[in-house]
Amino acid sequence: MSATIRYGMVGGGADAFIGDVHRQSARLDGRYDLVCGAFSSDPKISLESGLALGLPEGRCYPDYLSMIEAEAGLPESERMQCVVIVTPNHLHFPVAKAAIQAGFHVISDKPATFDLAECRELSALLESSSCQYALTHPYTAYPMIQEARERIAAGELGKIRKIFVEYTQGWLAEAIETGGQKQADWRTDPQRAGISCCMGDIGVHAFNLAEFVSGLAVDSLSAELNRIVSGRCLDDDGAALLKFSNGASGVLIASQVCTGDENDLRLRIYGDKGGLSWSQEEPNSLWLKFSDQPTQLVRTGNPWTSKSSLNGVRLPAGHPEGYIEAFANIYKNFADHLLDSALDSKPAYPGIQDALRGMAFVETVVASSEQDNAWMDIPG
Amino acid sequence: MSATIRYGMVGGGADAFIGDVHRQSARLDGRYDLVCGAFSSDPKISLESGLALGLPEGRCYPDYLSMIEAEAGLPESERMQCVVIVTPNHLHFPVAKAAIQAGFHVISDKPATFDLAECRELSALLESSSCQYALTHPYTAYPMIQEARERIAAGELGKIRKIFVEYTQGWLAEAIETGGQKQADWRTDPQRAGISCCMGDIGVHAFNLAEFVSGLAVDSLSAELNRIVSGRCLDDDGAALLKFSNGASGVLIASQVCTGDENDLRLRIYGDKGGLSWSQEEPNSLWLKFSDQPTQLVRTGNPWTSKSSLNGVRLPAGHPEGYIEAFANIYKNFADHLLDSALDSKPAYPGIQDALRGMAFVETVVASSEQDNAWMDIPG
Amino acid sequence: MSATIRYGMVGGGADAFIGDVHRQSARLDGRYDLVCGAFSSDPKISLESGLALGLPEGRCYPDYLSMIEAEAGLPESERMQCVVIVTPNHLHFPVAKAAIQAGFHVISDKPATFDLAECRELSALLESSSCQYALTHPYTAYPMIQEARERIAAGELGKIRKIFVEYTQGWLAEAIETGGQKQADWRTDPQRAGISCCMGDIGVHAFNLAEFVSGLAVDSLSAELNRIVSGRCLDDDGAALLKFSNGASGVLIASQVCTGDENDLRLRIYGDKGGLSWSQEEPNSLWLKFSDQPTQLVRTGNPWTSKSSLNGVRLPAGHPEGYIEAFANIYKNFADHLLDSALDSKPAYPGIQDALRGMAFVETVVASSEQDNAWMDIPG
Amino acid sequence: MSATIRYGMVGGGADAFIGDVHRQSARLDGRYDLVCGAFSSDPKISLESGLALGLPEGRCYPDYLSMIEAEAGLPESERMQCVVIVTPNHLHFPVAKAAIQAGFHVISDKPATFDLAECRELSALLESSSCQYALTHPYTAYPMIQEARERIAAGELGKIRKIFVEYTQGWLAEAIETGGQKQADWRTDPQRAGISCCMGDIGVHAFNLAEFVSGLAVDSLSAELNRIVSGRCLDDDGAALLKFSNGASGVLIASQVCTGDENDLRLRIYGDKGGLSWSQEEPNSLWLKFSDQPTQLVRTGNPWTSKSSLNGVRLPAGHPEGYIEAFANIYKNFADHLLDSALDSKPAYPGIQDALRGMAFVETVVASSEQDNAWMDIPG
Repeated sequence: MSATIRYGMVGGGADAFIGDVHRQSARLDGRYDLVCGAFSSDPKISLESGLALGLPEGRCYPDYLSMIEAEAGLPESERMQCVVIVTPNHLHFPVAKAAIQAGFHVISDKPATFDLAECRELSALLESSSCQYALTHPYTAYPMIQEARERIAAGELGKIRKIFVEYTQGWLAEAIETGGQKQADWRTDPQRAGISCCMGDIGVHAFNLAEFVSGLAVDSLSAELNRIVSGRCLDDDGAALLKFSNGASGVLIASQVCTGDENDLRLRIYGDKGGLSWSQEEPNSLWLKFSDQPTQLVRTGNPWTSKSSLNGVRLPAGHPEGYIEAFANIYKNFADHLLDSALDSKPAYPGIQDALRGMAFVETVVASSEQDNAWMDIPG
Repeated sequence: MSATIRYGMVGGGADAFIGDVHRQSARLDGRYDLVCGAFSSDPKISLESGLALGLPEGRCYPDYLSMIEAEAGLPESERMQCVVIVTPNHLHFPVAKAAIQAGFHVISDKPATFDLAECRELSALLESSSCQYALTHPYTAYPMIQEARERIAAGELGKIRKIFVEYTQGWLAEAIETGGQKQADWRTDPQRAGISCCMGDIGVHAFNLAEFVSGLAVDSLSAELNRIVSGRCLDDDGAALLKFSNGASGVLIASQVCTGDENDLRLRIYGDKGGLSWSQEEPNSLWLKFSDQPTQLVRTGNPWTSKSSLNGVRLPAGHPEGYIEAFANIYKNFADHLLDSALDSKPAYPGIQDALRGMAFVETVVASSEQDNAWMDIPG
Repeated sequence: MSATIRYGMVGGGADAFIGDVHRQSARLDGRYDLVCGAFSSDPKISLESGLALGLPEGRCYPDYLSMIEAEAGLPESERMQCVVIVTPNHLHFPVAKAAIQAGFHVISDKPATFDLAECRELSALLESSSCQYALTHPYTAYPMIQEARERIAAGELGKIRKIFVEYTQGWLAEAIETGGQKQADWRTDPQRAGISCCMGDIGVHAFNLAEFVSGLAVDSLSAELNRIVSGRCLDDDGAALLKFSNGASGVLIASQVCTGDENDLRLRIYGDKGGLSWSQEEPNSLWLKFSDQPTQLVRTGNPWTSKSSLNGVRLPAGHPEGYIEAFANIYKNFADHLLDSALDSKPAYPGIQDALRGMAFVETVVASSEQDNAWMDIPG
Repeated sequence: MSATIRYGMVGGGADAFIGDVHRQSARLDGRYDLVCGAFSSDPKISLESGLALGLPEGRCYPDYLSMIEAEAGLPESERMQCVVIVTPNHLHFPVAKAAIQAGFHVISDKPATFDLAECRELSALLESSSCQYALTHPYTAYPMIQEARERIAAGELGKIRKIFVEYTQGWLAEAIETGGQKQADWRTDPQRAGISCCMGDIGVHAFNLAEFVSGLAVDSLSAELNRIVSGRCLDDDGAALLKFSNGASGVLIASQVCTGDENDLRLRIYGDKGGLSWSQEEPNSLWLKFSDQPTQLVRTGNPWTSKSSLNGVRLPAGHPEGYIEAFANIYKNFADHLLDSALDSKPAYPGIQDALRGMAFVETVVASSEQDNAWMDIPG
């Protein structure tokens, strides 16, 4: 069946970055059609952006509320089925809420909401509706991350004892927000980003990855956040000691002031039988380590890798697959869930549970840091 | 301007591999619409494939000739503008010829034709038409390959002296063609693949890459081809010593029987001032080496890289871009050429000249090998 | 001048590991002669070990006290000049004390003493004597670590902001001490190892490396130590958040239960102008990272590297130099100090200050961990 | 048993490079004593060098003939037992011949002789004497090379089909011999180096490594040598196609003009069951590749590696061992052979057979290159 999903986009106009990533991801497998959008808080930019994307003028909306209202009034076979949210953080929840209340599915950029309270409200809303919700944590959609999760679930590493996860970037090593860099501007602004810059933006990806791959939950943490570049109101760096549900311990590092680092997300997990490591900048390699045999290098696309890994692969082994392919796996799996399986399969993409965990993590690291890195439980 | 190009595809049905790569590449940037196709030599499979891709039944054609004829009869605003050819090798030329004669642009999978004579005919045909032609040599479209070419052109390595290029795979290490593996079946069959398997399939990519990056032409070569797996009629392995137009020498290695190798295309070029190396399996890293200063690691997407490199980048540095992105760069640049520049710009994609060089290379390596690796000139 | 230094060894018999490393290091440059030893607490093993090393029976002593006494009674031109201490930890101080009181120089394996109090006593003793003292922190003697220190001292990374240092091994992932593995046996025994296993054995190397390369002191820390393998009385794993004297922050990780890891000591330091990274398992590569230019790979032995780096190099670039070579650099620099420079040069090897810092670090991490990772100052 | 071997050195004075490598290698394990030397063709430099090395004036000889004569006249318990030859190439044979005729064992730097005829004479001489002979091909003494050989011998890769070996350096990319660089001076001089510079200096190491690891002999080759830097009389670059005794084919590359390369010796071998790769600049890692399972990374020093690999290991896994350690393995194994095994064991070091193969290789590549890379058999 070749059915595609019609989607409308909120945000993602002109000089945005992540909007284009979503559109490319939606296009890659031919499972989505962009049919409308409210691409900017400036109606003029929204219209220009929509026209440039080939939309008819009538479906380039000045704001998301009018988009949702107008689309809801269209015949079922024409109207959008899904809203993609790629605005700054503070708008994620209001848009998602309006969309769900009007009966539209939602794909939201992360974080799901501005804070945990909103996220719980969103969760309740979803429970009482039949709308589906995907949150774009793309790193978990890399084939070798799926493979890592499968290996641990199968017990290949034994009982998990240690988890190190780190995400370091260098792009905020200088105060580029004062020079008008748009991404830096809103991410360092508490009004639009929320209570955290670094932990909310990238620490939460590291947290999500650690929980996803290990299959364990972080119970409590002790965190220290820093504002390294002077003038910042939000953290641009931090670290946390972690305690997991099974007694394992770990360390999470996130920083945006590591000069010269690009997007260095790394994960290492050790059990009593073996260890693994993975690095986002070489995502098609997964290392499995043992004390009594050679280290194994597992590579994306080999036919002997796991089914859930191969599900996210488009090419034979040796043809590098990258970030957009991982991102597109979320779109593909969301489409599969909506269209092919009558919604009775288990969603193979991040959703509201990941959202709740992430928001709880961010609130807990901030609270712990404010209390001299006291140990704090992550609210369930 | 958001105009897209309507294309029809020949080949690429059901169990084909490269057809899907082309479709993904065409989709990624939203610059193409698939409007019709003749996806298989079996009309039933063609129809099923087309329907699965969302085409109306009427534009799923039983063969390429009827597709070209029917599309030519449609109104200009509806008919396809471009034919994408993804059949086995022996059909590349007949399809391209028919398409061009009917006034359609062509994107062809490599090799352009079955032999050099056909390629010259194709070249002549293009010269006398206004149709544009792209040949998918995707490796040259990686950002770091563009960067490498720019650096050499700017003289950073000095006068080029040595070029080593190699492309090793392991997928034909066993006689899988006898077990019905479709890709292996036609690639090892002289009737469909041409006079060479390994050199025609991957050696030619290595050759193209070496000439593209160095900006030099190979004048002559001494080659030895091998049929390592018993029962094969065509080479599955080979090597050639190379002489370049400026006096530089080199070595080209290609093999499909390197057990355990995936898609290991590597290039090293040395001049009297510096050297560079690049590996396809880690395509976002380019190494520049010098005798009097540290080795430099240039990474995809950094703002200080060259304009032609950044032209092929969709993400900030550190977000891996892979094979499909490189492939899509050819599609994007072809679209730019057709739509945005009134055809007066220099094409930024491989075309008929690359095709002629490649076919001449393949014929010369085979001839040299048949004469006990005698040195032979590559016909101009 | 070819003068060599006559040394006696305490410990390092039969099945010891580190004794042989010291002897190889002493031999490599031909600057030392082993003239006597008390190689074991068992006089019979001591004698056998000494004979096997080519010593005359009369200089194979049953214990270190008799060795020191007997050697002190020999003519000056014959008697040992220096004592090398390679016993389990609890004997380091008593042997060093006796040696210094008898007027012998000392090269001691790390840690210098059993606890900080002893170390202060040792420091006072050294101040009131003319004996020289070297502590074998070999990792700081790698050429690329010397290079890293020089680069930071020269301001190439700007003001230092972040330091990540980690040292992970897997050899204690199982309770091998219960099976008679001698190294594991005494290192996990509080009577012989001191108050810490993991932090005292390897965490202190990480700490020393971070301070040495950055040129900064750790002021305070918040640490959590774990006893992961059941039955252990001492930590086999831990992590600490660090505050440096200039306001920089950092994270130190040490673990001996990272299954499959060998000897994975890594250092990353970031300043406001650039960052660096280094890994002990590939010690001849130093990475310098910047936001506005390519990453630089500096390699051991290149003539454009720093003088202090080249001082520790024995081969042209590209000939790997390893752990023993680094270790031997300490021996070589100690010999240079004793023989060539009339003791007026600055020692180019780790000494009593490193010892004091290391013991203070170990006591502080243990204390912080016992108080729920409270922040604690490292005593000066 | 702690017996050591007394050796005299010919060559290796002041500004020589390789003499010091031999002395360090002899020292590392405490199995050798330097007792005399003729360190330079200049008697004054010889004397100064010997004194600096701690020798008595009476055993610092003005030339190798007087050294051999004088030492032969000393009591057996005092005189040298072995001559180490580290002169320029043209003197290797005369010194070895004189030493053997006087009854001394020989350790010779490579190449064994100036040409193949001399080498055959040397071989005959050794057969008729009881002297032992070692040739320092250090790369085969790396633990992971021993491991690779064992794995292939055990059939883990199946029948060997392809061998790629390459050795690239950049140090002769400029005409440094004209500026007085001593190493470059004699290596590019046919009177002292022989008929080849690059192939004789490093190509022969690549050849030796390929034969040693594969356990196969090269039967014939087709080679092209180049003189890339103008003014040179000998090759500074070259490549050869290889045919092995079992039908396998291969490519050998050697170059000294690869600007920015250090000492990049790499080996890849593929059989019908698996492949392996190894790189000298990261010598403690051996990669084993398969089509149906993960790539395996085998690391030096792990207890599950082969006995012949562990024989060359001095440290636990994760402590890098380098070039001098490999070099010292030849010295250690030579000492074991002389002292511990009554000469009835199989020598575990390179010897006269390696010498004969190497000289035959060099003569054949030069001859093939002079005849337009005609295929030529390597004389047995």
